[in-house]
Amino acid sequence: MIIVLKPNISKKQEVAILKEIRKRGYKPHVMRGVSRIVIGAIGDELTHQSLETLGTVFPQIVESVMPIQKRYKLVSREAHPQSSTVKVREHLLGGKKFHVMAGPCSVESEKQLLQTAEAVKAAGATILRGGAFKPRTSPYEFQGLGEKGLKLLAKARKATGLAIITELLSEAHASMVADYTDIIQIGARNAQNFQLLIAAAKTGKPILLKRGLSMKIEEWLLAGEYVLANENCNLMFCERGIRTFETYTRNTLDLSAVPIIKKESHFPIVVDPSQGAGRADLVRAMCKGAIAMGADALLIEVHPNPAEAWSDGTQQVSLEVFAELMQELRPLILASGRE
Amino acid sequence: MIIVLKPNISKKQEVAILKEIRKRGYKPHVMRGVSRIVIGAIGDELTHQSLETLGTVFPQIVESVMPIQKRYKLVSREAHPQSSTVKVREHLLGGKKFHVMAGPCSVESEKQLLQTAEAVKAAGATILRGGAFKPRTSPYEFQGLGEKGLKLLAKARKATGLAIITELLSEAHASMVADYTDIIQIGARNAQNFQLLIAAAKTGKPILLKRGLSMKIEEWLLAGEYVLANENCNLMFCERGIRTFETYTRNTLDLSAVPIIKKESHFPIVVDPSQGAGRADLVRAMCKGAIAMGADALLIEVHPNPAEAWSDGTQQVSLEVFAELMQELRPLILASGRE
Amino acid sequence: MIIVLKPNISKKQEVAILKEIRKRGYKPHVMRGVSRIVIGAIGDELTHQSLETLGTVFPQIVESVMPIQKRYKLVSREAHPQSSTVKVREHLLGGKKFHVMAGPCSVESEKQLLQTAEAVKAAGATILRGGAFKPRTSPYEFQGLGEKGLKLLAKARKATGLAIITELLSEAHASMVADYTDIIQIGARNAQNFQLLIAAAKTGKPILLKRGLSMKIEEWLLAGEYVLANENCNLMFCERGIRTFETYTRNTLDLSAVPIIKKESHFPIVVDPSQGAGRADLVRAMCKGAIAMGADALLIEVHPNPAEAWSDGTQQVSLEVFAELMQELRPLILASGRE
Amino acid sequence: MIIVLKPNISKKQEVAILKEIRKRGYKPHVMRGVSRIVIGAIGDELTHQSLETLGTVFPQIVESVMPIQKRYKLVSREAHPQSSTVKVREHLLGGKKFHVMAGPCSVESEKQLLQTAEAVKAAGATILRGGAFKPRTSPYEFQGLGEKGLKLLAKARKATGLAIITELLSEAHASMVADYTDIIQIGARNAQNFQLLIAAAKTGKPILLKRGLSMKIEEWLLAGEYVLANENCNLMFCERGIRTFETYTRNTLDLSAVPIIKKESHFPIVVDPSQGAGRADLVRAMCKGAIAMGADALLIEVHPNPAEAWSDGTQQVSLEVFAELMQELRPLILASGRE
Repeated sequence: MIIVLKPNISKKQEVAILKEIRKRGYKPHVMRGVSRIVIGAIGDELTHQSLETLGTVFPQIVESVMPIQKRYKLVSREAHPQSSTVKVREHLLGGKKFHVMAGPCSVESEKQLLQTAEAVKAAGATILRGGAFKPRTSPYEFQGLGEKGLKLLAKARKATGLAIITELLSEAHASMVADYTDIIQIGARNAQNFQLLIAAAKTGKPILLKRGLSMKIEEWLLAGEYVLANENCNLMFCERGIRTFETYTRNTLDLSAVPIIKKESHFPIVVDPSQGAGRADLVRAMCKGAIAMGADALLIEVHPNPAEAWSDGTQQVSLEVFAELMQELRPLILASGRE
Repeated sequence: MIIVLKPNISKKQEVAILKEIRKRGYKPHVMRGVSRIVIGAIGDELTHQSLETLGTVFPQIVESVMPIQKRYKLVSREAHPQSSTVKVREHLLGGKKFHVMAGPCSVESEKQLLQTAEAVKAAGATILRGGAFKPRTSPYEFQGLGEKGLKLLAKARKATGLAIITELLSEAHASMVADYTDIIQIGARNAQNFQLLIAAAKTGKPILLKRGLSMKIEEWLLAGEYVLANENCNLMFCERGIRTFETYTRNTLDLSAVPIIKKESHFPIVVDPSQGAGRADLVRAMCKGAIAMGADALLIEVHPNPAEAWSDGTQQVSLEVFAELMQELRPLILASGRE
Repeated sequence: MIIVLKPNISKKQEVAILKEIRKRGYKPHVMRGVSRIVIGAIGDELTHQSLETLGTVFPQIVESVMPIQKRYKLVSREAHPQSSTVKVREHLLGGKKFHVMAGPCSVESEKQLLQTAEAVKAAGATILRGGAFKPRTSPYEFQGLGEKGLKLLAKARKATGLAIITELLSEAHASMVADYTDIIQIGARNAQNFQLLIAAAKTGKPILLKRGLSMKIEEWLLAGEYVLANENCNLMFCERGIRTFETYTRNTLDLSAVPIIKKESHFPIVVDPSQGAGRADLVRAMCKGAIAMGADALLIEVHPNPAEAWSDGTQQVSLEVFAELMQELRPLILASGRE
Repeated sequence: MIIVLKPNISKKQEVAILKEIRKRGYKPHVMRGVSRIVIGAIGDELTHQSLETLGTVFPQIVESVMPIQKRYKLVSREAHPQSSTVKVREHLLGGKKFHVMAGPCSVESEKQLLQTAEAVKAAGATILRGGAFKPRTSPYEFQGLGEKGLKLLAKARKATGLAIITELLSEAHASMVADYTDIIQIGARNAQNFQLLIAAAKTGKPILLKRGLSMKIEEWLLAGEYVLANENCNLMFCERGIRTFETYTRNTLDLSAVPIIKKESHFPIVVDPSQGAGRADLVRAMCKGAIAMGADALLIEVHPNPAEAWSDGTQQVSLEVFAELMQELRPLILASGRE
């Protein structure tokens, strides 16, 4: 911790603050600067009592308190310099091979799901996405088929060999969802629902952690730390757009998160251009940007008939568009040194 | 729904889009404008299939689709022009009397809680706040005393007669928390954790719904709609700051939410200046602004010794400061026509 | 400056960085912490070469560089603990008396302006606002009457005795605008147009500096520093709403800026609730909040017939509404210890 | 315009609103929906008096007013379906060839500039950037060499054949800057300084218009419209990051702006990854993303010795890093169908 004092502090005030710092278990180190005194407090910020309240207790003396240590540990590349991969059935995410997860926003029917699964597999996807439990802004919107949807996903896996990813919405469903799925998705609205993160982590299944709508990178990494601290090291981050003032798109896809997560963490980073833009017409360009910037996988919403989708039709692409898109992305994936 | 077509649409394209609108159960109404055709689609947007996907299905024809109806119903003042009050033990929130909820960020010990409870009661507060389950950004931070904290809150209620508010973090704890508390608080990070909202609503207890960090007013009202749709009409909204680019304060308290909630909804609005600023030195001014703008109650973090608080010490005020603050707010409350 | 090194730095790397810090004129002060070394670099950050590039030059060694000193000086309360007042004709802004500046968004005609001026004076305003040069998002919108508008403002001053405030848009107009007006307004879009700030400052006239749409408090204070550094100490800050994700209002009025500016600076703070909300129906509550939180003055858009205003009709209040509003604010102004 | 009425409007109220719409020159078109009446007002929104004030004038009757027409015309792809190119000396921007503009943040000395110019030319850049007039947040920071810097840029052009881009800060300098430069840059802070845009446009030189820190796409296009409306059709847009809540980077580069500008406008789009991230270590990934998403050019800050740069050293890359980067980008440029 660095404690910056106000200008013109008396000797007595200085002594008082030094005493308090020592009392909290830190060793103070005084630097007398040009206009003010700065104190370095040496001690582990993660285990000692915080010094952040010094400003509240000594408002006449302390200007500001600045932490030095990063708050995330297990998730950080500092702690684990090599990149980690996550095994999902026979696939390795975060390795040399680039993966595409694709499927409908919501599982609606056997026909819809199987048709989509076969089409996305034929186009080159390896993982099938589909929502069985849907977090909807309004209670009057379609909330998903629930366990029936999970059963359909399992059926589609059996029919096509695709692995499965689906969202977990409730702690109460954690073991049930884990029984069916290969990857548990934690959605943006639940990115800081720590009880859900813990419940998901405890299933041992790979976790795809979407970024919250206004989540700072540090908070996202710390939410990932919840997964690791609960003894699950199969973690993937997924950028899906942040909330800004722009109204042209539903969210603003923050592709700079890709190199930042790669730099700060050792876990794979996935990009969801469908949620990220909320507009099917921008998905193509977003996919290209994500690949070029180093993403490990894409998560794309695909529907046999977006016009009749029960949720988020505006951001889903048709089976034909998806097949074309996959063709178009291939050279770029190769040019980025991936397979 | 209003469907705006692109300029220079052919007769054939117009016919196609009209057919689709009728197919989805709406009655189209064509307006030929100066530069383009606009279609009004008449039908209940809350029950019919959405037309929002028209832009995806007919990208060559449709420029944009705009909804007309408000998505919230039960929560809206349109549906219920009189203001609603919420009964919490012998108190009525949202009525003529202005209420102050005060207490520590976290319940830490019997001594800390009782001392605070007595002091805030003496200063004029009617409701005691205290966190037993704490949502913390990092898994390494203090997570609350759990049920032990709830028991201490109940003890403090017995000792002082104050009503109690505490946060619910997990669906699994809903009935336990409801057994102890008078108001269930849903925190900002869980404001769109719909499963938690439903579990909380079903206990029948009054719900204080904090605004999410980047929640639009409409989304907040819709989250409240989840409470009402689950047959609990004891709802209060609580503004606690939104996330912006500013770094001087932890959040930006959006006091304009007070008159907007009053205008759009019939439920009480509470303001939390402690979370809203994240700085004890700004709490005073924030309280005054909230009262002047028409808030029904305040939620203030108070601690006997903020310097040693186990969480969020920088934003808690001391017992002495709280007592002074209450004195200072009194004339303003009266000047605002409250008691 | 505080320089945080990466963990596990070699002795040789440490020597290299210390040498560089000395070379730039700072005295390094080494603190060996639990997990890493932190260096305090003692020297005046405002006059020495910055150390911020150390991270770029020594990416293997340096984790981060943190400035300690505040970048603003003349504008800061630290430099000038007493509050400053600004003299505008016979009025003193920032003193005991609360002021209201009111008038139309745009000056449209002699009749419109004089009618408004007389009405706002009768209601208690002391300063007349009116735009002669209008910054408009689109080139096809009304751009103001220009010098003709200035002449009408001068006429209204003569007729009513009200002081005048109007916006300066172009360096080229600085001396002309200064010839007519009593206060020069710098609009939100030009808040970091430093050439305009310098030109305005050099006229010697009082400057009302609106906050930019996404301006941090520190940047706003530094923009004010441009005025002071050009030898004009008649400065007022004006909060007028920031840009957030919310779409219900045009901007989000950030009333917390009032106590923050009061704390960090010695100059008066004015609040513009008309721009701040962009909705006439919220102006009333915004005014009350601003007064309660300690603002020195209000800037309110008033028009004899908002429906026919040539610009921003939705946020202007009518003469009748303004008169009522002033009545309603009076007790609150008194309760806040103002006149 | 679409005017949405409140529910339960009386016949008399309906007649009043229809009368007002006709009075303002629009032809009303009434649609009776399920819960309310919606009126389409037919007429040119760009030339008629706006109807947006109807909500203010008839607050009991009108719920909301929604514009239909896009506010930008000349800049829009709707008006000009083919992509436009901009000629800069012998180069064509926005065509098949991909361009790189590179050079120091600030022009500091002849040696620094010429060394950089030769290096970036050798690496493949075609346009030299360099700031002679610098907009600085603080008045105490280096403000640029002024005309001396312009002369050095001209010298570097003569020596290397590179075209030149430099920022215009003041209307008063427009003709002087135009005398030296090949492209006039309008910086983010001046993106809505309309007087400066007009002065720049009138020089006839190509204009590179950076996006403002919190500028919506629509506002950016309208700022471009100011250039076109002043008879200069040599316009380029430049994305350089927007302001969000994230603190890891200085700004959040919004690469989705690339496909959106391509879709909405016919003018070239340039990406500035140096300002966009404010961190040299992220420039590489940002460049790749920009190319893959369809940008027409890059604007990169390069300095022979970033550690000693007089401004923004943390975001400038060295000559060696730039040369490597250009090598690395080549295959991606080809894979994107550019030269």
